[in-house]
Amino acid sequence: MRALVYHGPGQRAWDVVPDPAIDRPTDAIVRIDSSTICGTDLHILKGDVPEVRPGTVLGHEAVGTVVEVGSGVGTVKPGDRVLVSCITSCGRCRFCKERRYGLCMGGGGWIFGHLIDGLQAEYARVPFADTSVYKVPEGLSDEQVLFLADILPTAYEVGVLNSRVEPGDTVAIVGAGPIGLAAILTAKLYTPAHIVAIDLDDGRLERAREFGADVTINNGSEAAVTLVQQLTDGLGADVAIEAVGVAETFELCTELVQPGGRIANVGVHGHSATLHLEKLWIRDVTITTGLVDTFTTPQLLRLIAEGRLDATPFATHRAPLAETMAAYDVFGDAARTHALKVVLEAAPVGEELMESEEVTVGV
Amino acid sequence: MRALVYHGPGQRAWDVVPDPAIDRPTDAIVRIDSSTICGTDLHILKGDVPEVRPGTVLGHEAVGTVVEVGSGVGTVKPGDRVLVSCITSCGRCRFCKERRYGLCMGGGGWIFGHLIDGLQAEYARVPFADTSVYKVPEGLSDEQVLFLADILPTAYEVGVLNSRVEPGDTVAIVGAGPIGLAAILTAKLYTPAHIVAIDLDDGRLERAREFGADVTINNGSEAAVTLVQQLTDGLGADVAIEAVGVAETFELCTELVQPGGRIANVGVHGHSATLHLEKLWIRDVTITTGLVDTFTTPQLLRLIAEGRLDATPFATHRAPLAETMAAYDVFGDAARTHALKVVLEAAPVGEELMESEEVTVGV
Amino acid sequence: MRALVYHGPGQRAWDVVPDPAIDRPTDAIVRIDSSTICGTDLHILKGDVPEVRPGTVLGHEAVGTVVEVGSGVGTVKPGDRVLVSCITSCGRCRFCKERRYGLCMGGGGWIFGHLIDGLQAEYARVPFADTSVYKVPEGLSDEQVLFLADILPTAYEVGVLNSRVEPGDTVAIVGAGPIGLAAILTAKLYTPAHIVAIDLDDGRLERAREFGADVTINNGSEAAVTLVQQLTDGLGADVAIEAVGVAETFELCTELVQPGGRIANVGVHGHSATLHLEKLWIRDVTITTGLVDTFTTPQLLRLIAEGRLDATPFATHRAPLAETMAAYDVFGDAARTHALKVVLEAAPVGEELMESEEVTVGV
Amino acid sequence: MRALVYHGPGQRAWDVVPDPAIDRPTDAIVRIDSSTICGTDLHILKGDVPEVRPGTVLGHEAVGTVVEVGSGVGTVKPGDRVLVSCITSCGRCRFCKERRYGLCMGGGGWIFGHLIDGLQAEYARVPFADTSVYKVPEGLSDEQVLFLADILPTAYEVGVLNSRVEPGDTVAIVGAGPIGLAAILTAKLYTPAHIVAIDLDDGRLERAREFGADVTINNGSEAAVTLVQQLTDGLGADVAIEAVGVAETFELCTELVQPGGRIANVGVHGHSATLHLEKLWIRDVTITTGLVDTFTTPQLLRLIAEGRLDATPFATHRAPLAETMAAYDVFGDAARTHALKVVLEAAPVGEELMESEEVTVGV
Repeated sequence: MRALVYHGPGQRAWDVVPDPAIDRPTDAIVRIDSSTICGTDLHILKGDVPEVRPGTVLGHEAVGTVVEVGSGVGTVKPGDRVLVSCITSCGRCRFCKERRYGLCMGGGGWIFGHLIDGLQAEYARVPFADTSVYKVPEGLSDEQVLFLADILPTAYEVGVLNSRVEPGDTVAIVGAGPIGLAAILTAKLYTPAHIVAIDLDDGRLERAREFGADVTINNGSEAAVTLVQQLTDGLGADVAIEAVGVAETFELCTELVQPGGRIANVGVHGHSATLHLEKLWIRDVTITTGLVDTFTTPQLLRLIAEGRLDATPFATHRAPLAETMAAYDVFGDAARTHALKVVLEAAPVGEELMESEEVTVGV
Repeated sequence: MRALVYHGPGQRAWDVVPDPAIDRPTDAIVRIDSSTICGTDLHILKGDVPEVRPGTVLGHEAVGTVVEVGSGVGTVKPGDRVLVSCITSCGRCRFCKERRYGLCMGGGGWIFGHLIDGLQAEYARVPFADTSVYKVPEGLSDEQVLFLADILPTAYEVGVLNSRVEPGDTVAIVGAGPIGLAAILTAKLYTPAHIVAIDLDDGRLERAREFGADVTINNGSEAAVTLVQQLTDGLGADVAIEAVGVAETFELCTELVQPGGRIANVGVHGHSATLHLEKLWIRDVTITTGLVDTFTTPQLLRLIAEGRLDATPFATHRAPLAETMAAYDVFGDAARTHALKVVLEAAPVGEELMESEEVTVGV
Repeated sequence: MRALVYHGPGQRAWDVVPDPAIDRPTDAIVRIDSSTICGTDLHILKGDVPEVRPGTVLGHEAVGTVVEVGSGVGTVKPGDRVLVSCITSCGRCRFCKERRYGLCMGGGGWIFGHLIDGLQAEYARVPFADTSVYKVPEGLSDEQVLFLADILPTAYEVGVLNSRVEPGDTVAIVGAGPIGLAAILTAKLYTPAHIVAIDLDDGRLERAREFGADVTINNGSEAAVTLVQQLTDGLGADVAIEAVGVAETFELCTELVQPGGRIANVGVHGHSATLHLEKLWIRDVTITTGLVDTFTTPQLLRLIAEGRLDATPFATHRAPLAETMAAYDVFGDAARTHALKVVLEAAPVGEELMESEEVTVGV
Repeated sequence: MRALVYHGPGQRAWDVVPDPAIDRPTDAIVRIDSSTICGTDLHILKGDVPEVRPGTVLGHEAVGTVVEVGSGVGTVKPGDRVLVSCITSCGRCRFCKERRYGLCMGGGGWIFGHLIDGLQAEYARVPFADTSVYKVPEGLSDEQVLFLADILPTAYEVGVLNSRVEPGDTVAIVGAGPIGLAAILTAKLYTPAHIVAIDLDDGRLERAREFGADVTINNGSEAAVTLVQQLTDGLGADVAIEAVGVAETFELCTELVQPGGRIANVGVHGHSATLHLEKLWIRDVTITTGLVDTFTTPQLLRLIAEGRLDATPFATHRAPLAETMAAYDVFGDAARTHALKVVLEAAPVGEELMESEEVTVGV
């Protein structure tokens, strides 16, 4: 089959690789119908994630069709259309039993396109299939559910739920990239009074307004703090969500929240930050961090199925799976292309993959 | 009357000052029967709390007897024996209505011996008496309840409740001074599997064992981390409580906890700490800070009244109120005197205060 | 002044009564600008609430202007426009400190138009003013906030919060009268997948759809259970809210919920119900009851001020305060008039009350 | 092998039956080392549980040794010493993913000695072994962990956790049989102020005191209510736990709790009860029901391993497994024998089972 293979920092190729096969009784083989590219894939390509060995197929987000299952698989069968999530779960270890699948100690967690071959491919082997895939409700398109593979549960669990957003809250979201936008989208489920988006790019802030932010600010930290205080009788935000991953934005979050406020870090950090305990010790703040567990995937699927949540606006670009190489170029140059997510679409079953098709830009 | 008056950094005296009087309808005047000295009083004397103006009576912990109430006071009356807590509450502002009395915006919060005259005195004016004092249950001595004025609710609310200690948890407590010991005492209410006390003083660690720690370690951070991992199948503590107030001990707490663990900062910090987000972003940790609210005072009073909690071991030393100056010397030299708390005892009503009595050392 | 006075079962009159006066230092006197009639007032008139003594002014919902305050009142002053809520709070007793103002043991709780004179009057004495009234945010009309005096916090706290509605839930609401409609309105704050309204009156069900129910059923219990199961893969509702107050509707709620579901009773019951423990013991259900505490009033005010919640559709009818007698007729005959709430409007200050004006019917 | 077989109402025998064998890849075969008899087994023998077909091996509580595993089992292997719990979990269905294993829809839940052959046998087939057994920590005896198979997690989860017992609470436990005693034992983990045991048998109440109740009453409902009110300033219990399973004791619980109190039903009911909504609607009570999920088994194992919890006092009687018939007689006549739990002990491996040994009475 064909797949997008990592060949070391800066090196990727659309290679012919062996078809995946059942390795353990709990595995399933899934034909990938739709996949997509994550900012993390770009990090891997920069060499920031050294655990990824050259030769690994990338990708950890897909919708596909089960084609084969191991002897120990009991709840999915060939023909089932499933969401394959960035997190797999052994279902048996301490953390899986506590619904912290992201911390799985039994061989799951984030492994696709990281420790095992991933999902930007024609087929994939899915370990622990019984506890790691979700049947797609009838009537929903791939694009409607594809972003549940990572970005939506990440923003919802690590951002919105960890920070306990409540109706009437003022929620400050620092960073209006895809994760920040997903935090806006899922924060709205709780009807906050204000969603304030803070970023340094006017294009992203316009997107933030489209996704549901009612206040946006492109400016230094001081102006953001002042603005949020004006909205909240001088107190500060109930909740601040960090969706960038650098020290400055985290520190801004600690300045934005009111006494008693909650700060949820969602960004992936490469460096430490300064925690101003000399100010914060007395302010009753709660700071949380976390990797997505995807325990909310069934809840989010239900919201999408019932028309209460619409993630399709993330699909700004589409490309045939065979054009994954070009799709990386589009996604990697988001500042120019304004790509949020590029949907990689497999050819209908029976059709040969045509490698000459163009990436389509635009919604 | 006589009172312990702050006269600027390094300066204190047992002065004659005017008797306090009702200033607002919600005030009460309380005769102080027992008071005590807090580490914070020593900080004030060092000049670390510049809001305290010279001339202020110090002290924010007392048991006393109401002698007069303002016209708006409805629930306490002269003759009532009451606990006067470090935190007063207006009962009306947003934060008081959310039980965050420590953040009171209506004139309460921590004000005794800070923004108004305090409780190391023969009498004191207590604002918002209806919402700020607690009747002492019949049959309880001053010493049984005195430490509910600050140290016990601080350790319980900001340490044990914020970190959500549960039965079977391994709880690491960094710092075995009075606050750390109070955290040990109140963590036991939830039957953890292990309470690990970490300190650099063997005498304090012996106290920690007396108060209920089952594991103690006097050693550098690395050894503490190793020890806690050994107790927890390599995972780390469920909970780490910071009870010192310096960057190193806070940072140690973040290394002690397991993925999914909770870190409660109780210490008062004068400087920032480094937050290793490059490690913590993926570890699902929760960090909390806070000032005591004293909302658990009724609960703690009930536990003491029913014999489920005993705070009297904190009373290592006693002195007549008139000997407050000498008592400060004893408390300030805890490294040598091993004082945890010095109880300042007013003379029985009718007896003249004898300033020549000696401070009694020892239980 | 004039007021609506209860004279025993079936007897009410628009009487001249003495003006209220400050009785305790914590009282305020409020000029009533807008008031309204509650279903409970009709119950009182039927003689169902024998604690109400003849001679009592009825009414427990109003927006007004402070005209005088007692010496102990510190946070409101003459001229302040305030919401006067059905629940007053002493702010000092165990239950008030736990935010359970409806259970106040210090003289508060539901007392207006019940144990003391109420709010269908030109003026009213408001006890515990500091902890019992809420300043109306600038720019909001009386009608925008009036229904926060009872109906909205009742449905929100006792129905929606007690039953812990979450995004994606299926919420069954039994009864589509004013309380049921308020439950629909406030359940939407949490973005449930479905709100199913169940009633025996098609007119009410049409209203339910206007307020936000997406499924309605006018039918016997069996059909309702079947319908809800169809919506939920055969499991049943996540949440059932009882908004009628009779045994049958409560029992229906216990049949509607899925294993693990929550049942919130909001209705006022005069008789016992049968609890089918032989079925329910194994089904992990949670049943809650409660009187409103109004602790969410500031949150609901914020949602209204920011345009996230609109309670004005409850104002189906309006009448001058002087026409309160006629307004009772309109409200009491809701089956014909389709009245949800009748707003009683005081004449502008300075204008004499004209008793001849007509009740206006319609929005 | 030999096993205790149900032959219809009133009929049981110690039969020779076929050895169990692996049926699905997720199965394990366990040699039973210790088993015990539950009150539910007596119900089955009375014919109260018609789903149990004649021919079924009874028993749902055991400690054993794995002798064989299916191809899909990944976390246990032959030779592992395991607790086999009353609840099995498929680990994959909606309810298992929510930790509600008792409601498992994938073939688990309570099935041993109910829908499939049980554990009062020499060997047993354990479905879903990976998610349904717990390794016994080294150094713990069978008897130390055996009662975690049902009685302890039942009382803890359905009684203590559902009712949210907190330090300082007054907890009323109605029924001092094995489940009531287990509720006493596990409520103590949270240091309540009082544990009040209510029963009609003085012998049981003496046991209740041994297990940790500090107040006991053998008397009608009225006296119990009065006593509890005396302990709580007239308010009533914070928590009432029903541990009998009849309407009267459930109704007593609703009278025992204070406004805002929690009632946890643990008893298995055959009939409905009367719910006095005409009193309760205004009292802010929470009522919960439930079957055990065993999600706390790891936590309880840790508490036992660390010496914080001791369940061995339940083992009032012991018998060789071969004497299971006689053991039923002892357990079934608890009023006379005062048996709490009879431990059925398999012969050491290699020894032939001797059917002539006597049941030993007494600890």
